[in-house]
Amino acid sequence: MGGDHGPAEIVPAAVQVLRNNPQLRLILVGRKDDLSRLLAGYSAAEIERLEIRHAPEIVEMHEPPSAALRVKKTSSMRIAIELVKEGAAQACVSAGNTGALMAMARYVLKMLPGVDRPAICTTMPGIHGQTHLLDLGANVISDSEQLFQFAVMGSELTSAVNNVASPRVALLNVGAEEIKGNDMVKQAATLLSRSHLNYIGFVEGSDIYSGKVDVIVCDGFTGNIAIKASEGVAEFISHHARAEFEKSAYGRIAALISMPILKAIRAKIDPRRYNGASLLGLRGIVVKSHGDADRISFAHAIEEAIAEVQKNVPDRIAARLEALLIQDAKP
Amino acid sequence: MGGDHGPAEIVPAAVQVLRNNPQLRLILVGRKDDLSRLLAGYSAAEIERLEIRHAPEIVEMHEPPSAALRVKKTSSMRIAIELVKEGAAQACVSAGNTGALMAMARYVLKMLPGVDRPAICTTMPGIHGQTHLLDLGANVISDSEQLFQFAVMGSELTSAVNNVASPRVALLNVGAEEIKGNDMVKQAATLLSRSHLNYIGFVEGSDIYSGKVDVIVCDGFTGNIAIKASEGVAEFISHHARAEFEKSAYGRIAALISMPILKAIRAKIDPRRYNGASLLGLRGIVVKSHGDADRISFAHAIEEAIAEVQKNVPDRIAARLEALLIQDAKP
Repeated sequence: MGGDHGPAEIVPAAVQVLRNNPQLRLILVGRKDDLSRLLAGYSAAEIERLEIRHAPEIVEMHEPPSAALRVKKTSSMRIAIELVKEGAAQACVSAGNTGALMAMARYVLKMLPGVDRPAICTTMPGIHGQTHLLDLGANVISDSEQLFQFAVMGSELTSAVNNVASPRVALLNVGAEEIKGNDMVKQAATLLSRSHLNYIGFVEGSDIYSGKVDVIVCDGFTGNIAIKASEGVAEFISHHARAEFEKSAYGRIAALISMPILKAIRAKIDPRRYNGASLLGLRGIVVKSHGDADRISFAHAIEEAIAEVQKNVPDRIAARLEALLIQDAKP
Repeated sequence: MGGDHGPAEIVPAAVQVLRNNPQLRLILVGRKDDLSRLLAGYSAAEIERLEIRHAPEIVEMHEPPSAALRVKKTSSMRIAIELVKEGAAQACVSAGNTGALMAMARYVLKMLPGVDRPAICTTMPGIHGQTHLLDLGANVISDSEQLFQFAVMGSELTSAVNNVASPRVALLNVGAEEIKGNDMVKQAATLLSRSHLNYIGFVEGSDIYSGKVDVIVCDGFTGNIAIKASEGVAEFISHHARAEFEKSAYGRIAALISMPILKAIRAKIDPRRYNGASLLGLRGIVVKSHGDADRISFAHAIEEAIAEVQKNVPDRIAARLEALLIQDAKP
């Protein structure tokens, strides 16, 4: 078990999610001794739907994906993905090395028919609702056809998990006007306009947090930078907020008085609520938790995986892509 | 005069900046009647270094740049840039249509020798200091050679305006490791490593707000989306902060008590302090203010232009590029 905190946060998250989902069974894949020790504090009833699967190795957070794929065949990550492949598990959730998870998942599970490349998709909170944003870095380059496939995958995920009948899909661009952008987004716009998706056009970076569209599609390079820049801004704002409240005795009193409000604000913008990025396009469900996820945050990633299992997201994506291929083939 | 507020905010900004800079002379380019009316409230002494230059036309905010360039020859934007070309002004500051400003500035002023494309560069506030980020959207595609030129321009701007002897320059990428990224950033990294710039490697999106480097270079598509995503997050956070403080009587009292602190936080993160993006690579100084700049914000953009005039930024960029060319040509 990887991630920055390993099983110490993942085990309590697993027990919590079992409590909330009476039908759920979970397999913890990791070092047996560590896991047993962490489970010792719970009652038999609390962990009766929990199983341990020993894995002697761990993929390190900064290990090159290619090396992890070649060498770490008995790592917790590899074994967890193999369990999905064998049908022993319906989904895999990991807080580990993103590149290695992606490489192993592609190698072991394979891609869905009609999908060239997987995409990482996450839920972004917004002023007027939430938005699925993809790709967040599974690929550093994409062509317009791949952006189109991302749009199909994001749309299916939204309609399945959020029960949105016809998700509004947009392309991320440097302006909303049709003439803006590079060839890749312009060509993707043409493909999307001709499709049966509910394509509404281009949106700008600020629209990621507006909630005015359901799905925003971009290449992985742009998506990764947009999401990390966002983390940077949030960190910058909270740094100054903390510093100003702590600077004076008056500030510390004001902070105490405002504490319930400050907590409510933090809860509203808490990225932990949105933890759990989906690796879409694979023949199986793989959810990536943020590396530094705590138990609350990791529990959200497991809940995301449960929702995708219940709605059978990979099959829905495959069916939609097949329908589009048939549609295209018609004269 | 363009921008969302036009002369109503620009004129008071101009008067304020004149007050702070006793050597400064300003030319207001716009509709004479509007400008005269707005100046009527000031004393003769306050506006003695202020001159009006009549321009009958305005470039609209969403006018296509090519059309503005072709048709709006007596617009305030065009005339202001021509004044720089003729040497009647040393810099042009505009809150108008960015694309049109860029197109007209390129056409009228021309590029510096050794520069393929202009870049838009702005100051980003960070936890440990400020950073110049470029390009923010002057170009939707760039190659590695152009990224290299952006690095030279950003480095010269920082060393001139911020008095940094050897600015730390980084490339924006999806990870800090050398193997990460697309070919464009990898090739730019090679060029930068071989140069005499203080190139420190790749940084991620979150580093834009860390202040740990002086200059961050990216293509205009990525930069535009990073900066707009940042605006979106800030808006999202302030939306929820306002909503929570306003939700209850208790919250409104807490807000009153915390008001001095909340104001101090807002001042620290106020984007108006950093208003004024430089159009680099031109044979002349052009500064772009945010379209919705108020007087405080627009005054910062004028101050940015003054600093660039004092430090002779275009000549410094040209000299540095020439030195690099000579260096390259050596056996």
